[in-house]
Amino acid sequence: MQSQTYSIGVIGGTGPQGKGLAYRFARAGHRVFLGSRSPERAQEAAQKLNARLPADQAVSGTSNATAASVNEVVLLAVPWNGHTELVADLRDHLAGKIVISCVNPLGFDKRGPYGLPVSDGSAAEQAAGLLPDSRVVGAFHHVSAVSLLGDAEYLKDEDVLVCGDDAAAKGVVQELVRAVTGRIGVDAGALRLARQLEPLTAVLISINKKYKTHSGLAVTGLTRSH
Amino acid sequence: MQSQTYSIGVIGGTGPQGKGLAYRFARAGHRVFLGSRSPERAQEAAQKLNARLPADQAVSGTSNATAASVNEVVLLAVPWNGHTELVADLRDHLAGKIVISCVNPLGFDKRGPYGLPVSDGSAAEQAAGLLPDSRVVGAFHHVSAVSLLGDAEYLKDEDVLVCGDDAAAKGVVQELVRAVTGRIGVDAGALRLARQLEPLTAVLISINKKYKTHSGLAVTGLTRSH
Repeated sequence: MQSQTYSIGVIGGTGPQGKGLAYRFARAGHRVFLGSRSPERAQEAAQKLNARLPADQAVSGTSNATAASVNEVVLLAVPWNGHTELVADLRDHLAGKIVISCVNPLGFDKRGPYGLPVSDGSAAEQAAGLLPDSRVVGAFHHVSAVSLLGDAEYLKDEDVLVCGDDAAAKGVVQELVRAVTGRIGVDAGALRLARQLEPLTAVLISINKKYKTHSGLAVTGLTRSH
Repeated sequence: MQSQTYSIGVIGGTGPQGKGLAYRFARAGHRVFLGSRSPERAQEAAQKLNARLPADQAVSGTSNATAASVNEVVLLAVPWNGHTELVADLRDHLAGKIVISCVNPLGFDKRGPYGLPVSDGSAAEQAAGLLPDSRVVGAFHHVSAVSLLGDAEYLKDEDVLVCGDDAAAKGVVQELVRAVTGRIGVDAGALRLARQLEPLTAVLISINKKYKTHSGLAVTGLTRSH
């Protein structure tokens, strides 16, 4: 049961992760504003998502600044490269908002993917430092864009791990996870544990390559309300 | 089906993780030598495990040096504190062996558990650097000692992630995982991905505290032979 619907802005909404999560949020009844440096490209992406959604026009395309300012919840789905400047520029727009970071600072070389060192510890902590008036939560690092954009009703075998220092904001994001997995997100602890969650994606990409799949994570040993 | 049995040394075999894995290995038909700084304490621990095992005397207690030298596969289950000296001291004993590291460099403060910075990247990479004549593999970071020492036949919902740069050694360890989960371990990629696997345990400990459970991990999207 979806208890509450939100209007959600997606910064970097034309990338695969942003589009995939936007699709899931809209499908679950939330209103979504895809943001992009190019509002035209965001509108094109929104149109394609709307064509797949039962309710017309649940997704709109706009600028990153508008996607940040008109919504109560805003997802940062931007590349790590350029993260600092982009987030700093949105500071005023994001004041007072719940900001979700799914950013994974990863590198790739001939030995495969790996976690990049981050001076602030993690992308989520960097965002929290740049956005002192926002409530930053880390989540959705490990869900594959291919799975998100697939036809399955929910990624029902997977868990989404949610970390943050603001308990109420973390609770909102845990509820939003229902749009993706069909069940509440796992409270993974303090925001600084994003240091562990973000680069773990390198392991999943490595597994994807080896096993030719789109892997995800589940936490065992939990009994959660569905 | 357990295709091959090994003799396995467990360095730090009186700690919970070492005892728990020793129990699972012995239960699956492997011969296990528990090592400790104090051979007497290792013998006591071995006796307790043997009392729970169908075949008598599958577990022996001895010194760390003997546990390292008489076995083809050796598990490092030692605290991160003192790791460098302990591993360096065993270098000659471990030459030519497959060495499994399940060491998690973690810190704890009032905000909870967190991953410690490691100058070599990870405990497994530090061991590989200290043991140039051994074949170091990372595995078994995330299985709870309580679950390992429990009565369940297998931790059948969990996966063990195995990382390493020596494909043959990694393959042996993936097979050994059957003793714990009842199925082959997941190839998680290069040894350096231990940087991601080791501190992830901080997230699981945080979840354990919040949900009052013994959590574990599973990888979704894989079809593996059981």
